[in-house]
Amino acid sequence: MQKLVIVGTVAFDAIETPFGKTDKILGGAATYIGLAASQFNIDAAIVSVVGGDFPQEYLTLLKDKNIDLTALEIVKDGKTFFWSGKYKNDLNSRDTLDTQLNVLADFNPKVPAQYKDAEIVMLGNLHPAVQLSVIEQMAEMPKLIILDTMNFWMDNTMDLLKEVISKVDVITINDEEARQLTGEYSLVVAARKIQQMGPKYVVIKKGEHGALLFHEEEIFFAPALPLEEVFDPTGAGDTFAGGFAGYLSKTNDLSFDNMKNAVIYGSTLASFCVEKFGTERMQSLTKAELQKRLKQFKSLTQFEIKLS
Amino acid sequence: MQKLVIVGTVAFDAIETPFGKTDKILGGAATYIGLAASQFNIDAAIVSVVGGDFPQEYLTLLKDKNIDLTALEIVKDGKTFFWSGKYKNDLNSRDTLDTQLNVLADFNPKVPAQYKDAEIVMLGNLHPAVQLSVIEQMAEMPKLIILDTMNFWMDNTMDLLKEVISKVDVITINDEEARQLTGEYSLVVAARKIQQMGPKYVVIKKGEHGALLFHEEEIFFAPALPLEEVFDPTGAGDTFAGGFAGYLSKTNDLSFDNMKNAVIYGSTLASFCVEKFGTERMQSLTKAELQKRLKQFKSLTQFEIKLS
Repeated sequence: MQKLVIVGTVAFDAIETPFGKTDKILGGAATYIGLAASQFNIDAAIVSVVGGDFPQEYLTLLKDKNIDLTALEIVKDGKTFFWSGKYKNDLNSRDTLDTQLNVLADFNPKVPAQYKDAEIVMLGNLHPAVQLSVIEQMAEMPKLIILDTMNFWMDNTMDLLKEVISKVDVITINDEEARQLTGEYSLVVAARKIQQMGPKYVVIKKGEHGALLFHEEEIFFAPALPLEEVFDPTGAGDTFAGGFAGYLSKTNDLSFDNMKNAVIYGSTLASFCVEKFGTERMQSLTKAELQKRLKQFKSLTQFEIKLS
Repeated sequence: MQKLVIVGTVAFDAIETPFGKTDKILGGAATYIGLAASQFNIDAAIVSVVGGDFPQEYLTLLKDKNIDLTALEIVKDGKTFFWSGKYKNDLNSRDTLDTQLNVLADFNPKVPAQYKDAEIVMLGNLHPAVQLSVIEQMAEMPKLIILDTMNFWMDNTMDLLKEVISKVDVITINDEEARQLTGEYSLVVAARKIQQMGPKYVVIKKGEHGALLFHEEEIFFAPALPLEEVFDPTGAGDTFAGGFAGYLSKTNDLSFDNMKNAVIYGSTLASFCVEKFGTERMQSLTKAELQKRLKQFKSLTQFEIKLS
């Protein structure tokens, strides 16, 4: 069975949207990635850290999804990373209200021995130094390293981020971040420049406007499923990345055609994530629901023009 | 052979984009629609009006594309409709600098006798009173009436526009206009409300973010082709509508599956339109170029997931 190593935050989130607000709930990039990847019955492990305040019920929840938590360090006298944000009315932008790094400030990731030969490594959004450390701990070069990051690291640790970017095979970032990283407005040109920085595959996430996958001269596009109502966008990008990585782990096929399928799975899973607050929808998601929505995705995008 | 009646402006445009500016060049909704539809070798006629200042070379250009100009009225002592606009840096919005209605102010459309039995009527952007007059002149109910309109008519003649909307089968409008027309932010909800106003099919154009086709509970999505550079967006929406109408005329198949194909043809043709100023690219476009880009569209959007 393929192994997938997931690095990223495991956190408390407090979220406010036009539809309501939550107290501290389960969040974090690695959490969303893990929940999405768990749909594929693969051998996935989360490398992260939480504090002694992290509830046993959340650990149980993740373990019940067959996510390996050997490398989820628990700092007994520390506090779990906390993020709080408020979405604007159109849900396309948000303000961060509070960020408390807590145990993340001194986090030293340790990849367990039995995962040092993992085929795929998914570097979720986190300090580039942590991402770099995980790459360096791998005993042999993984078949595929996928990087997700955000503008915060471009603003604050660009050199280190660029070093990570130079070492990965796939990068997933959003449209504004692709523009910031390259200084190019056209996403086609930006994707080409990012490929020159290292990654052979570039995924540009456009939120409600879908996602683009670039590789050499090829481009693939997957829309976001048109939804009557987006309830909470938190974690949608991580869920996309987790679906992408999980599907590739499951199928063990890194061709461009199969990456297209991985993008479709990622988009489909993300369409569930936004239906409820936090991880709630991903916790209850069944394989039958996923299959049904994949069919919707097919009828949404597939057509039958015969070409001469 | 199927007949297509096209109503809309034939105009002079003066355009300014970040890449340059033009003097008065050939423009107008019916012009773009006609040029796009002419790719399908159908029997298409433009119902419109120009002034005595409209150059013979433009008339020749349209005739050479086999567009019937019997119903293009020429008011010898009048001046052709003129529009001037300037695009902002991201090309997603524009300011109108000047609008001179001229001969359009008193336009009384006349559908020629030989087109009163046309199977498809394409109502390009124009005063709703003109659109209504054309519908009323048809000897028998066309198989399909397609309406394109814009926010200007919603602001100024909403009641009349709603009367037109109640009489058409397909409406194509952009996302902001769909929201304005219905007061709904979600495009899925907006499309449902518009269907209740009359049109069985609703196409919502999202510019660089593609187009959605709604019918009952079905949704189809076509992206815009990712381009390195958009030169001039003028006429892209009309070109989309012309490709949509032209393909349906050519194939004489009004099933939802074939409408998907029509959306793809519309999107593909629009991707050419924006490559040069005004109608320049559409004038030179060949069938071989169109076929080649349709192949790109296929590889951009088609995938092979086997579903259980």
